[in-house]
Amino acid sequence: MRGFIKVTFQPLGQSVYVPAGETALDAALEGGLELHTPCGGHGTCGGCRVVFVSAAPEPTREDRTHLSESEIEAGVRLACRAKLADDSVISVPETTLRKDSKFLLHGIMREVALRPSIEKIHLRVTEATLEDQRADADMLMDGLKALGREATLSHAALGCLPGALRAEGHNVTAVMDDSEVICVEGGDTSGALYAVAFDIGTTTVVGMLLDLNTGAEVAVAARTNPQVSYGDDVVSRISYAGDGGLGKLHGAVTGCVNEIIDDLAKEAGISRRSIYQAVLCGNTTMSHLFLGIEPTYVAQAPYVAVFRGAVRTSPAAVGIEISPDGRVVVLPNVAGFIGGDTVGVMLAADFAHSEKLRMAVDIGTNGEIVIGTSTRMLCASAAAGPAFEGARIRHGMRAAAGAIETIRIEDGRLVISTINDEPAVGLCGTGLIDAVAALLDAGLIESTGRLVSADEIPDAPEDLRRRLQVNSTGPIFVLADPETDGAARQVALSQRDIRELQLAKGAIQAAITILLKEYGVAAGDLDEILLAGAFGNYISRESALRIGLLPDVPPERITQIGNAAGTGSKLVALDKGLLEEAERLSLDARYLELAGRADFQGVFAESMMFP
Amino acid sequence: MRGFIKVTFQPLGQSVYVPAGETALDAALEGGLELHTPCGGHGTCGGCRVVFVSAAPEPTREDRTHLSESEIEAGVRLACRAKLADDSVISVPETTLRKDSKFLLHGIMREVALRPSIEKIHLRVTEATLEDQRADADMLMDGLKALGREATLSHAALGCLPGALRAEGHNVTAVMDDSEVICVEGGDTSGALYAVAFDIGTTTVVGMLLDLNTGAEVAVAARTNPQVSYGDDVVSRISYAGDGGLGKLHGAVTGCVNEIIDDLAKEAGISRRSIYQAVLCGNTTMSHLFLGIEPTYVAQAPYVAVFRGAVRTSPAAVGIEISPDGRVVVLPNVAGFIGGDTVGVMLAADFAHSEKLRMAVDIGTNGEIVIGTSTRMLCASAAAGPAFEGARIRHGMRAAAGAIETIRIEDGRLVISTINDEPAVGLCGTGLIDAVAALLDAGLIESTGRLVSADEIPDAPEDLRRRLQVNSTGPIFVLADPETDGAARQVALSQRDIRELQLAKGAIQAAITILLKEYGVAAGDLDEILLAGAFGNYISRESALRIGLLPDVPPERITQIGNAAGTGSKLVALDKGLLEEAERLSLDARYLELAGRADFQGVFAESMMFP
Repeated sequence: MRGFIKVTFQPLGQSVYVPAGETALDAALEGGLELHTPCGGHGTCGGCRVVFVSAAPEPTREDRTHLSESEIEAGVRLACRAKLADDSVISVPETTLRKDSKFLLHGIMREVALRPSIEKIHLRVTEATLEDQRADADMLMDGLKALGREATLSHAALGCLPGALRAEGHNVTAVMDDSEVICVEGGDTSGALYAVAFDIGTTTVVGMLLDLNTGAEVAVAARTNPQVSYGDDVVSRISYAGDGGLGKLHGAVTGCVNEIIDDLAKEAGISRRSIYQAVLCGNTTMSHLFLGIEPTYVAQAPYVAVFRGAVRTSPAAVGIEISPDGRVVVLPNVAGFIGGDTVGVMLAADFAHSEKLRMAVDIGTNGEIVIGTSTRMLCASAAAGPAFEGARIRHGMRAAAGAIETIRIEDGRLVISTINDEPAVGLCGTGLIDAVAALLDAGLIESTGRLVSADEIPDAPEDLRRRLQVNSTGPIFVLADPETDGAARQVALSQRDIRELQLAKGAIQAAITILLKEYGVAAGDLDEILLAGAFGNYISRESALRIGLLPDVPPERITQIGNAAGTGSKLVALDKGLLEEAERLSLDARYLELAGRADFQGVFAESMMFP
Repeated sequence: MRGFIKVTFQPLGQSVYVPAGETALDAALEGGLELHTPCGGHGTCGGCRVVFVSAAPEPTREDRTHLSESEIEAGVRLACRAKLADDSVISVPETTLRKDSKFLLHGIMREVALRPSIEKIHLRVTEATLEDQRADADMLMDGLKALGREATLSHAALGCLPGALRAEGHNVTAVMDDSEVICVEGGDTSGALYAVAFDIGTTTVVGMLLDLNTGAEVAVAARTNPQVSYGDDVVSRISYAGDGGLGKLHGAVTGCVNEIIDDLAKEAGISRRSIYQAVLCGNTTMSHLFLGIEPTYVAQAPYVAVFRGAVRTSPAAVGIEISPDGRVVVLPNVAGFIGGDTVGVMLAADFAHSEKLRMAVDIGTNGEIVIGTSTRMLCASAAAGPAFEGARIRHGMRAAAGAIETIRIEDGRLVISTINDEPAVGLCGTGLIDAVAALLDAGLIESTGRLVSADEIPDAPEDLRRRLQVNSTGPIFVLADPETDGAARQVALSQRDIRELQLAKGAIQAAITILLKEYGVAAGDLDEILLAGAFGNYISRESALRIGLLPDVPPERITQIGNAAGTGSKLVALDKGLLEEAERLSLDARYLELAGRADFQGVFAESMMFP
């Protein structure tokens, strides 16, 4: 019986047992290492060089063709030709590893392969002669075939082919989208290969520039979605789109995306023409508007979207200024009010492979909540309104310089901090939640949401009592005063503000309550709560628990995962396999329509109370 | 052992032997009959009704659901459910046959299936409810799936989907290109389904409007290719394209195609938006220019094209005004000087299935010649120049009213006929060949091409002698005179004209000679010569043989097949399977480059002589 031998790969130390006679390339694959083999492992390209630290096999004919005598002497071999006879230690140079080597994306705990659908392949194409008059395109396709790649050419690629072929003596770089050549460039341009990933929020659009050769995020930029001038929330935009404004809303968001692309390219010092793919996600309405598709029926019962699945289109069809030969991908939606941004969160948090019971909460103008494991997922949407983003709050503002963002009561005195430590000018969403949590703790807000008056708490510390005032709008609590707190102006929390917050948190809390009930679990069963979105990233976990926005779990089970929706887009750009995963998630996650439920109003009313 | 039974289908009488227990649907398929089975043969649509003339099986549950009692009584059964037990005779109503029933295309001897890649499917889509919130696109795809069609939707189709769905109560017509929905229309628009098929000639562009529901050619129109103002032949156009004129040439030909589409739509009284496909062919240069692809290298050794294979693109990418959601297909080329028009001829003449040894000759500004059987094909191109189209001939003109098109000598007198019987104003290509053939027979032109003088033939009839004159250009033969023949002006054949014709026919004859030699056969071995192209259609076979333009075969072996290139485009529009056949033909036909051959000049010089 043929024996098994042990092969250890450096520098990571993976060991595998393989039958003697197997090649080092196969052994590496078993060890999870994908080597660079443009020729498909046929010994013709010399790409899969490895160094035998021990037990180097006899050099093969192909080794002698591709390697120098001193390399052979040093134990270098082509992995695809090297047959293993004995236990070996093999060192794999970084240049031999395929770009797919695993890496960790900061902010979320998910490893993905760097395996973009967009690739560049540099090759030397055979020149035609009177004896071999193959067309340019056939020559290129035959050249790619020799590298193990079956390909077709797009019409656009044919346009640039003859010039590119003859620019540098038939040395060209083919830009591929999977098996289609979408563009051909003269010479070796393989170093310049970028994609952009976007999260199109109702309020903010965030874009990232990705170097597809390294997987690195080279630049990030954000801008306010200019659609806000047509309405703060999705429902008002849908209504505007239905009144003939679809073109304007589409133009506004694509214009914003183009400005961000411009920002990113400038920051990284690259040409926009070397960006060959844009992957975008957004809530269902944002995705529709970005693609120029009428979202009218999302806002009318029974609230259906035009499309659910991922959409692939061209830069020209949406008006995006990357390489005109590039590709545009929009992540799939789940339902009318659970969009590709939530699918992006599920991708980033790896719901497809999670055995733990988790809940992801993305709080924005709309709140989207997903609960589940890889085998069962439920999701729902809650119309929180813009309170968390500072709107409809008397002194509310976005999270910008001068916004009060944390509030504590220490030794009977109110302690606030502002963004950039500037004099207080207003209150952002995180500050709002902190304020209410602190006042609840201090007994200044009752569980019904009522703000007590100073008279009712004669024994309370003076610094708190003096802040309880009444103005023309009714009772208020002064958070920062120009005279006593050095604020830029008086910033107060009003009774009305508290009611707005109760409505917003009530909507989310109700959705969470119903999801838990439908899933058949209690809050305590949750292994983890993932807080996504810019707002979720800055919120105080304790305050969120205090006001009942999040269900009752130990604070350490709450993880803030940042702009996970944007990360979802990014992952799809980096690993083409994830688009299929996104598609499956969008089908597997069952959407719970709260509007149709008999129990919703009751749960919502209860949820408006504070714990 | 289970026995075989005999099933005979009416009205055509096909008989097949199948195992007992097989369904009538399967038996029909074996007999080459495709029945109408939108549900995929699952007994749910009732589409595959047939009438058992004998041995009707017991009616099934599905029969009772879909058929009336009197129908069952009359032997009607659903073919997909009817299990055959005994020898049967089954009558297939025309309505049960799929649209693919065979039919004959006039002008060429080839039957094709009506199986266009563009189809319309009318269906009622399920309306969403709060309990079933599937997106519009998912509802449509699920509806199509129920009809046995797996489909995806293009971005453009998503754009028109919500409006179309709600225009007529979720009654829609999906326009499909194979498995992709490219457009959705409200209500039942399945009656309006058209394609255009084009032959883009160097001189003339011909377009046909096809009703894809019936396969009928509803209108045909032709216009002069406006590129002629940038040069008469492909080489001068390639040169102009290389000097920055590519955009102009592209715009000229697409403008012409659009005008023809407009002509066709007006003639048929249909909207251009109901034309969903354009299939085009042309010589390699015309195909490149139509697609906006630089043809420069076609004209420089080693004469290579940018593309060989078929190109699929969008109306917007080429600027063609059919439905913006439609598709454009350009037939594959063979080589730089054998284009999609020749592949069209090969398709029309069914070279892929021919066992006879045939030669197809398409004479235009360029002559393309193919010789072979289905198992071996050789082709070559001959630069005939524009003589056959009347250019460079002193009194030459295109085949238009007043052109002399036939010439005979009867009883010592010259007899001519003109197009539309109008007074002679010039000489078209067919007339030129007739004239030279007649003068060769009468001994007025020698085999070297020399025109004799009247003095040399004192005994010849006076009507011929008086026509032999000398003018400032040299010797001429007057074909029509205003005074004696009622011509509009003097039309004469000059010695120079004869030299031009010798060059043109010499090029084609030389190519034919070398092809026969390479193929290893003699002219007499040819079972058939197919003459394609407008010129080939009107030429006198006897005159063509007389001057040596065609190799020496009995005239009855010469068949004129009209605009076979255009027919090739038409066939691809009608039967999607033929694009693959075209692709195979374009790879299988070996191109013989005459420019590189040592024997070419010698054969060419000999070929200029007359037999």
